Amino acid sequence: MAGFGVFSVAAGEPRVGWRSGGEVVDLSALGAVFCSDSLNPLMAQGPAAWDDAVGRAREHEGPRSRIEEVTLRLPFEVAGYIDFYSSLEHATNVGRMFRPGADPLPRNWRWLPAGYDGRAGSVAVSGTDVVRPRGQFADEDGAPVFAPSKRLDFELELGFVVGVPSRPGEPIPADRFAEHVFGVVVVNDWSARDIQAWETVPLGPFLGKSFLTSVSAWVTPLSLLEEHRVEAPVQDPPPLPYLAAGRDWALDVDLAVELNGAVVSRGNARTLYWTMPQQLAHATSNGSAVRTGDLMASGTISGPERGSEGSLIELTRNGTEPLELPDGAKRTFLEDGDELVLRANAGGLELGEVRGRVVAPA
Amino acid sequence: MAGFGVFSVAAGEPRVGWRSGGEVVDLSALGAVFCSDSLNPLMAQGPAAWDDAVGRAREHEGPRSRIEEVTLRLPFEVAGYIDFYSSLEHATNVGRMFRPGADPLPRNWRWLPAGYDGRAGSVAVSGTDVVRPRGQFADEDGAPVFAPSKRLDFELELGFVVGVPSRPGEPIPADRFAEHVFGVVVVNDWSARDIQAWETVPLGPFLGKSFLTSVSAWVTPLSLLEEHRVEAPVQDPPPLPYLAAGRDWALDVDLAVELNGAVVSRGNARTLYWTMPQQLAHATSNGSAVRTGDLMASGTISGPERGSEGSLIELTRNGTEPLELPDGAKRTFLEDGDELVLRANAGGLELGEVRGRVVAPA
Repeated sequence: MAGFGVFSVAAGEPRVGWRSGGEVVDLSALGAVFCSDSLNPLMAQGPAAWDDAVGRAREHEGPRSRIEEVTLRLPFEVAGYIDFYSSLEHATNVGRMFRPGADPLPRNWRWLPAGYDGRAGSVAVSGTDVVRPRGQFADEDGAPVFAPSKRLDFELELGFVVGVPSRPGEPIPADRFAEHVFGVVVVNDWSARDIQAWETVPLGPFLGKSFLTSVSAWVTPLSLLEEHRVEAPVQDPPPLPYLAAGRDWALDVDLAVELNGAVVSRGNARTLYWTMPQQLAHATSNGSAVRTGDLMASGTISGPERGSEGSLIELTRNGTEPLELPDGAKRTFLEDGDELVLRANAGGLELGEVRGRVVAPA
Repeated sequence: MAGFGVFSVAAGEPRVGWRSGGEVVDLSALGAVFCSDSLNPLMAQGPAAWDDAVGRAREHEGPRSRIEEVTLRLPFEVAGYIDFYSSLEHATNVGRMFRPGADPLPRNWRWLPAGYDGRAGSVAVSGTDVVRPRGQFADEDGAPVFAPSKRLDFELELGFVVGVPSRPGEPIPADRFAEHVFGVVVVNDWSARDIQAWETVPLGPFLGKSFLTSVSAWVTPLSLLEEHRVEAPVQDPPPLPYLAAGRDWALDVDLAVELNGAVVSRGNARTLYWTMPQQLAHATSNGSAVRTGDLMASGTISGPERGSEGSLIELTRNGTEPLELPDGAKRTFLEDGDELVLRANAGGLELGEVRGRVVAPA
């Protein structure tokens, strides 16, 4: 595992660290931006400083701690959070379940990377407990109730984090992606499917998502992923000119989901239809600025094969085909006590994991 | 006009001021929280400090400047931005236009205050130019194009600003609204209807809104609106218990919209179906925390009479009945050079205006 994060030891101050295998290297001796409780000061400095920081971090002889001995913090202050919907297979799976007989894809889906603003204040670091949310949803008989969600799910995603801000009115073309983006995190966009289903028309996801979004404690700098870039799947129809570039930014990253220790899904991020540079170009195409700490996530990553879906609602066909775990237990949606881990691996380079245990509401 | 804001004079530092008629009183001598470039430090202190601040601000003999002589800043650092959809008349008008023949209201509309997360980083202070956004939309023949919006609109809203934060997992019941909320602003949720229409299914509003949201430079403390509280319209069906309180928080605030100096709409905020305490209770019902600086806006406020609609798409019946201005000019949507002003008045107490001029994209 490698990447930048923020940690503290015992009652000490938070500082920036470099993950190296099972250890964390304390970088605070390297300068002011490393003596911080977030990566934002480093992220704001831009690509030359980032490359320099990676080089220095790898060689730094600072204090090391075993990962079990440190407290990991949310690695960056989240300025804004946008969640996309960029997996063709995921959008198709969901469309088939909820609009049977119709074209599973919304009519705009192949024309733009669909996305929405999420709740930045609800983003927390891996390891944060997932308190089963209460909310309003339609019960079996269709009547609205307010109760703990019965259909708690995960969503396997990758996200990128903006370092260098832009100004209002200045879109970021896809080919300038790397001038603004610091690195990549693994994201679990926890979802309460019953709350989501009842609220989503006409304004989109809201309380079915905003109880918690978990990100890995480690941000993998973009430069470390350079050799894992591949060409994205062909787009048909070809995108409009403002979305035409950035097709060489699919990431060959193996993904796995573990539920109570058993692998329940395996996929790869290179199957995503829309790439990260296209997402950033679209999100800024109307002149909306980005800020240091903006998080933009891919949306659920599902592959074409059975067993590569990035959510339980897809893996279990909307709860009709329960997963059977090695101990004989069955799952449609998450139960209290379940522990879920998302893992991502780029040719041996492990990205940060995202771990969460479901707990009953107070 | 009365309320707290942030201003600077010439090249001086920003500080907190109190608006009193046509003047701004410099409050920086009153303590550290008033020597700030945002109201957030004051807002975080809670109701007792807010009441004390109002009392001291009104009596303070600090330096005064004419409003024309100061630069007004965004009055608070926006942590998160949620936009609701709480006007029955607006939701009905929009439903009739876009789903003719069907029930104009979504099936969940009378059960919960529908809302979505907006882009906090795009909130700017009154007076900020409205650069006509570019975006993707379906042209006359239905083919997607990327071009400057042809259907630029305004949305007349009131918003409230959170002062005292909450913790994750701790919903804020409607009857504890005043313990957390600092005050009220006027909001213009500028909207590009063509971009919005093309993108909105299935994830809701995104780039059709995120180019700019304007707020008044003055935040009116909740205590000043106390005597303008009235009972909200009866709700049928009665709301679920978690949304039952807060019905005595409709605000008797007269609203007006001026386009190029001519009043084109007049209404009142008391017609809103869902109240601010209900909105806050709903937004936190899943355990999502609020932070100092969270902005939550009402959604477009439209009244039941013709001429009380809070957007051009409603005033002009989706562009089919142009407005005729006193100088003979006609408008369906906003044209470059147009200046739009939102005004709000509670029994003689003016809330801050929201002003914006439309300019062509660069």
